[in-house]
Amino acid sequence: MADPINPTEKTGNKHAVLTDGFLLRVFDALDAHDSVALLALIDPLEPEDYADLLHFCSAEQREQLFDLTKTKLNPDVLPLLDENVREDVVEQMEPGQLAEAITNLETDDAVEVMENLDRQTQREVLSALPAEERDALRTALSYPEDSAGRLMQRELLAVPDDWNSQQCVDYIRSRQELPEAFYDVFVVDSEGHTLGAVPLHRLLTAKSTTPIKEIMDEQSQRMPVMMDQKEVAYLFQRYGLVSAPVEDEQHRLVGMITIDDVIDIIEERATEELVHLSGVSEPDFYRDIVTTTRSRFTWLFVNLITAMLASYVISFFEGTLQSVVALAVLMPIVASQGGNAGTQTLAVAVRGLALRELTSVNAVAFLAKEASVGAFNGLLFAGIISICAGLWYHNWMIALVIALAMIINMIAAGLAGALIPIILNKFKIDPAISSSALVTTVTDVCGYLAFLGLATIFIIK
Amino acid sequence: MADPINPTEKTGNKHAVLTDGFLLRVFDALDAHDSVALLALIDPLEPEDYADLLHFCSAEQREQLFDLTKTKLNPDVLPLLDENVREDVVEQMEPGQLAEAITNLETDDAVEVMENLDRQTQREVLSALPAEERDALRTALSYPEDSAGRLMQRELLAVPDDWNSQQCVDYIRSRQELPEAFYDVFVVDSEGHTLGAVPLHRLLTAKSTTPIKEIMDEQSQRMPVMMDQKEVAYLFQRYGLVSAPVEDEQHRLVGMITIDDVIDIIEERATEELVHLSGVSEPDFYRDIVTTTRSRFTWLFVNLITAMLASYVISFFEGTLQSVVALAVLMPIVASQGGNAGTQTLAVAVRGLALRELTSVNAVAFLAKEASVGAFNGLLFAGIISICAGLWYHNWMIALVIALAMIINMIAAGLAGALIPIILNKFKIDPAISSSALVTTVTDVCGYLAFLGLATIFIIK
Repeated sequence: MADPINPTEKTGNKHAVLTDGFLLRVFDALDAHDSVALLALIDPLEPEDYADLLHFCSAEQREQLFDLTKTKLNPDVLPLLDENVREDVVEQMEPGQLAEAITNLETDDAVEVMENLDRQTQREVLSALPAEERDALRTALSYPEDSAGRLMQRELLAVPDDWNSQQCVDYIRSRQELPEAFYDVFVVDSEGHTLGAVPLHRLLTAKSTTPIKEIMDEQSQRMPVMMDQKEVAYLFQRYGLVSAPVEDEQHRLVGMITIDDVIDIIEERATEELVHLSGVSEPDFYRDIVTTTRSRFTWLFVNLITAMLASYVISFFEGTLQSVVALAVLMPIVASQGGNAGTQTLAVAVRGLALRELTSVNAVAFLAKEASVGAFNGLLFAGIISICAGLWYHNWMIALVIALAMIINMIAAGLAGALIPIILNKFKIDPAISSSALVTTVTDVCGYLAFLGLATIFIIK
Repeated sequence: MADPINPTEKTGNKHAVLTDGFLLRVFDALDAHDSVALLALIDPLEPEDYADLLHFCSAEQREQLFDLTKTKLNPDVLPLLDENVREDVVEQMEPGQLAEAITNLETDDAVEVMENLDRQTQREVLSALPAEERDALRTALSYPEDSAGRLMQRELLAVPDDWNSQQCVDYIRSRQELPEAFYDVFVVDSEGHTLGAVPLHRLLTAKSTTPIKEIMDEQSQRMPVMMDQKEVAYLFQRYGLVSAPVEDEQHRLVGMITIDDVIDIIEERATEELVHLSGVSEPDFYRDIVTTTRSRFTWLFVNLITAMLASYVISFFEGTLQSVVALAVLMPIVASQGGNAGTQTLAVAVRGLALRELTSVNAVAFLAKEASVGAFNGLLFAGIISICAGLWYHNWMIALVIALAMIINMIAAGLAGALIPIILNKFKIDPAISSSALVTTVTDVCGYLAFLGLATIFIIK
């Protein structure tokens, strides 16, 4: 055996990443339908690594691989999968088997797996669950998508407010089942209302007779079940939390959110912003060709309409273009510079809105700044492009026209790039999704109109 | 008094956000130079809220506000500030005062404040620090920017590997100074090498006689001081860590990284990706007009060159454009659709590379998928645009030409959008920074060339 089975690269410190060599060996074994070799390769994998492996497979390989290993599937793999990949995988499982896997997960992970199932499968799985588990999941699924209620786990530690620190420690030690990980113990009154949280390190260092009330953090952030997950992430980040209690409408403690779930939310939000701003409705890395084509079509269709609008504006000036063909050659430059400047401003605005740096308090100052930046860069590029165009066509009237159009369009770009996301956000429309088409429409129309309009005035007439 | 001083909105659960009303009262007090009112307003603020307030102020207001409050400044405010805002604020402080503030911070926060100071101030502050503190900071600052060494704090808990759980607990209780927050106790051998980590909840539930070695997690991720912070963030996220030990080159435990610092890294990376992809070199929300103009100029200049390249391509076809002016009207449509389709693919590729979903293993499959998506959408839009153009100009030859050009350019967009970031990444160039200009250059040049070239062949000749 030339190369021992070593799925992960140990780089001095023990962090494990699937190596290309390992993946190729898995793919070879799949091609050869060699299940013995496959199982030997896959057996030592951690859930994270096995999830990665499923991600790297093609749809066919995944089916084959999963079919072979599903009887001994570690349920922890399921919540780690991308939604699209999980859909493929879950389709291959019997409702009973799925229910068994779900029973072994904490509520937040179970909900994540459940929420993407179709109604029919959801019902079948639910009915195969033990009653208590079923009720808990039903309740969790009744909260809106993207709410704190969907993100929380029911497994947590709560203690009455009249205990002392030793009683807490004894209670924790005596519990049969503990959450997989926890960082705070929550304090509740006799009606189950959250009063505060005690970080474990404080519990550990407190004297055994210290009343829990004295070491609990009353100011700790509580999340209502209906709170938007983005808001949850914002609070975790702002206050450096590692876990937080979740309350129902009557302020009763019903769950706990931990930082690992919140990191996923932050990463998801970042992904969404980036792909939305670039015209992709949903991250589609793991989607098939047809679904991807369909989901990207909408945005491109919107873009086609705006491009045709720009063409329509150009068509007003057919006479001008025919008499000075140089204008047709140069006209995309003004539109393109405006589009890019607008996108720059837009990105800063969208990020500022998401991080709550840009609010109604400083919106006017931001707008003024962006218009000024547009004007300054407009002046600089007007200088550069008018010299280039003048030298190219030996026509200084064209140079003047393109300079003026450039300044106008760059200011328009700054204004549109700042104003459009602010306005959309005001009307509760996600600015990342819809701003970009609007901004480039403004800069295209304004760019062609200014350039060709000024040319018609100065050069033709 | 109509409205009591209530800086933050208590929304049922106690999360606090500065209200617009509060900000306006602060701004009014600043205008009126009413320091008594100002101090009364600012005194109850948490460090997070005071940092926010400084962010919302204009540069002048910030100077005035900070001047008034700096003698009683909570040092925790400093690391919470945006780099550009912190620069303004720190300029107003004496090195001695700054040194005092820094002494009160944990190493990671102190480093964050120090690393943006100019050399001169850095030296002055360092020499005003106690010797031990100074050495620690000097060491930390000697690690490369964006390394784990810059992110870690020295304050941590380490225990020898031959202790039992009770000895650990006793030691923690007996320590004079503890880190502000900690979630794991690290286990080291007699030479200070990291052996593993014990989560506090496990320490708390272990029997007092249990050897620490039995409950420690040997597989815990260790971060070398020189590890890139993005890698650190990746490992935290992948393995759901809340804290991790940092080792020097001899594998000796030298520091600890906690999840709150990592969240900032994740958020920063997301911000950078978004603004880079949109042509902003650095987040510039808090930068002044001149610096912002300058930093955005470079990208726009690159774009100008590519736009002129596109114009140069168009100029080959001046004769064609002069005889059929409709071509000038329609030509931006093909280029624009290609640019947008390319940007869609690019965003998915850049995100895929950052999240390590896209690797050499599936690069070819990704490329094939994106080319196919481009081809399918190309066919769809070829149909739509050829009907529109045909009806508009009653010229079915133009309709045919624009249809063919659309298909060609959409495939080119898919290929360029996928291939360019992959290649740049291979050569260790950040694909978020440089891809976008290259992709639109391809789609512009290809779009104009295909459309006007085909028109010259089919219509003119």
